[in-house]
Amino acid sequence: MFSYDLNPKNKLTEELDLLIKKYNEYKSKGLDLDMSRGKLSKEQLEISSPMLDILPGDSNFIVDKSDCRNYGLHDGISTMKSIFSRILNVNSDNIFIGGNSSISMMFDIISLYFTHGVCKEKPWSQQPKVKFLCPVPGYDRHFNILSYFNIEPILVPMKSDGPDMDIVEEAVRNDESIKGICCVPKYSNPQGIIYSDEVVKRFSKLHPRSADFRIFWDNAYAVHDLTDSKEELLDLMNQCIQNKNEDLPIFFSSTSKITFPSSGVSALAASEKNLRQIKNYYNHKTIGFDKLNQLRHAKFLINYENLLEHMKKHRKLLRPKFQVILNCFAREFSDSNKNLATWNEPKGGYFISVDVEQGLAKTVVELCKDAGVKLTDAGATFPGGIDLEDKNIRIAPSYLPANELNIAVNLFCICVKIAAVRKRLLEN
Amino acid sequence: MFSYDLNPKNKLTEELDLLIKKYNEYKSKGLDLDMSRGKLSKEQLEISSPMLDILPGDSNFIVDKSDCRNYGLHDGISTMKSIFSRILNVNSDNIFIGGNSSISMMFDIISLYFTHGVCKEKPWSQQPKVKFLCPVPGYDRHFNILSYFNIEPILVPMKSDGPDMDIVEEAVRNDESIKGICCVPKYSNPQGIIYSDEVVKRFSKLHPRSADFRIFWDNAYAVHDLTDSKEELLDLMNQCIQNKNEDLPIFFSSTSKITFPSSGVSALAASEKNLRQIKNYYNHKTIGFDKLNQLRHAKFLINYENLLEHMKKHRKLLRPKFQVILNCFAREFSDSNKNLATWNEPKGGYFISVDVEQGLAKTVVELCKDAGVKLTDAGATFPGGIDLEDKNIRIAPSYLPANELNIAVNLFCICVKIAAVRKRLLEN
Repeated sequence: MFSYDLNPKNKLTEELDLLIKKYNEYKSKGLDLDMSRGKLSKEQLEISSPMLDILPGDSNFIVDKSDCRNYGLHDGISTMKSIFSRILNVNSDNIFIGGNSSISMMFDIISLYFTHGVCKEKPWSQQPKVKFLCPVPGYDRHFNILSYFNIEPILVPMKSDGPDMDIVEEAVRNDESIKGICCVPKYSNPQGIIYSDEVVKRFSKLHPRSADFRIFWDNAYAVHDLTDSKEELLDLMNQCIQNKNEDLPIFFSSTSKITFPSSGVSALAASEKNLRQIKNYYNHKTIGFDKLNQLRHAKFLINYENLLEHMKKHRKLLRPKFQVILNCFAREFSDSNKNLATWNEPKGGYFISVDVEQGLAKTVVELCKDAGVKLTDAGATFPGGIDLEDKNIRIAPSYLPANELNIAVNLFCICVKIAAVRKRLLEN
Repeated sequence: MFSYDLNPKNKLTEELDLLIKKYNEYKSKGLDLDMSRGKLSKEQLEISSPMLDILPGDSNFIVDKSDCRNYGLHDGISTMKSIFSRILNVNSDNIFIGGNSSISMMFDIISLYFTHGVCKEKPWSQQPKVKFLCPVPGYDRHFNILSYFNIEPILVPMKSDGPDMDIVEEAVRNDESIKGICCVPKYSNPQGIIYSDEVVKRFSKLHPRSADFRIFWDNAYAVHDLTDSKEELLDLMNQCIQNKNEDLPIFFSSTSKITFPSSGVSALAASEKNLRQIKNYYNHKTIGFDKLNQLRHAKFLINYENLLEHMKKHRKLLRPKFQVILNCFAREFSDSNKNLATWNEPKGGYFISVDVEQGLAKTVVELCKDAGVKLTDAGATFPGGIDLEDKNIRIAPSYLPANELNIAVNLFCICVKIAAVRKRLLEN
């Protein structure tokens, strides 16, 4: 393989010409490929489409003594509570079923804490400063919510087993303006990291200076395994209870990537004390969420065991797509070009996180875009969209068909190389 | 008819004994009847149940170039925009389609104004005082939202053609802490009043002292006529545009009482400037609302004209129920007992508002409850649940079957009479 670091300038120029020729070949195809979001592929959408036939107009709509077509059952139907109780490892009584979006619930809770405060504490809007710890790289939609509320992000580097807990512990111990941390503890977005038992235990033992600090535990990919070895995340609520810290975490999940994005069912879980405030909030906010969609889900998913079977169908479609990306990377960024990119090989979730050479991420994303391949914006995995090292790129393999994915990832590798060669030519 | 005001004490005592005997007969039946909320009856729910068969799993889900099963179309599908455009008399471009609840959107917008302010104005949370004008009697869920945000209610009496606009105009002109008014302009909750053209015009010409004053125009019953003569509400948005006041109103509506309560589709409409802020808010809050439910509605309702046909089916079921109540009132509270209760005869909406004699509403509701008939709490139609005259009671005829409704309303009349006779005996 041609080495970018062991060749003289004229050889590099030749290589660049070759790469640009290849790049232009792709560009001339008029591609329009989207790898930016964790959307489901058409085939994945088909997996759950039979759910749309499961609740015909002549069904029995009576559940938990209520007609699901009418007002009632404010906190959700019992089957969905049972299912989310297993997904989140939290008692059914501590589950609250919401609408179609868990992100929306997380936004609601943060908004609630701004207007009314956490439990009986002072509203965040009346406190001089609100800061959140942000494991990075992380989920752009979390960061967007924080930035919307003008919450100051405190960056915490991700290690291979979760956020750097030394930093987390010290920060919450010392700074009372730190009010929260947003975590995707299983198959983290974008790196696919599973928080280790040790990390979860340390979370459960946090003793924040501020009484209104909360852990936003967004377990979005709890059952979204890509391998047959089901990876276990230690049960945070149980650990918290053992440490008399049960008011610390708020759990979120949804079926967005189990059934349908935008037409799934979301859930939240929290201690009795937290839930009392949250239920009171939702009691003022809505007469109730969509119980017909809950019932549709309950009849289709049946129970947790069956849901795991259902997830195997997603896995079967997703795994080869991740493999397309990983194979291409392994081929293109090997041996002497190993340093052009590093990436994770996730055992679940929806993303592959790639670090290109420092200062090149924006260029790579731009080059891809110009040739018709849309990636998540460079920097999106950092608060404010600012990746100071400009190196992290999130790849979302789920949406495109394998053949298009193959085109997109090959183009991506060419773009990484073009950026790398140009950089060397400028440096020389 | 026995007159309560023209008889001596011993006759009144005899009458009371008779009434209590009747009351106890009802009580002994072990009734469990709910007239408290505007829930749909089983027959009404059946009207829309075919909607649940209209979007089978093998449907074409592509709408507006997007697969409704996936993320996308953040502000809603075009057919639903068109339909709500007609319901609200606002251009399609000014419509934003939401989730299953318009109350939830109203809550969201008020919450948004607390955390971020109206457009570029100071957040309400940073202003010393926030007050809202509250036409009374009015909708308890509006008042509950205001009280949740600690907004001070300023009572505005309802006249036969809408809120007393002299009071509204003077209040918004003089008091800059007044930030809003919640209106149900067509078939108002609970009185069924339609705001007159004059009232709507005066709303459109308001010049509030405060730049962040907004009219929350909750047109929940826009197409919910009970008679064949479709009552027209003057188009507020058009009037506001004519008066260069288009940023004043925010419109809300939903299909909760067109299709299914809790599983309908909600919408909001506003000027371009207002909508820009609101869309930005929802862009941070959610990846999108439930488009499958939107598509289900679009295929079922088809268009505005067909929706009006659909509403006739509700009307056919609702009208006789209102008639049961009205007939009973006309019979029981006539001639010399005319002063025991006054009520409205609504041409649409979901409620009959009854004023009993001053100081008796709580007693009547309590008596009904003890005999197994649940009414909306006395006072619920006033902010804070406080009806200073303790006379207004909201009757919701929709839910119960006609025979049970007949039992419930007869019991109600007995309770009104018991309370009235007791009052006279105490006064004598």
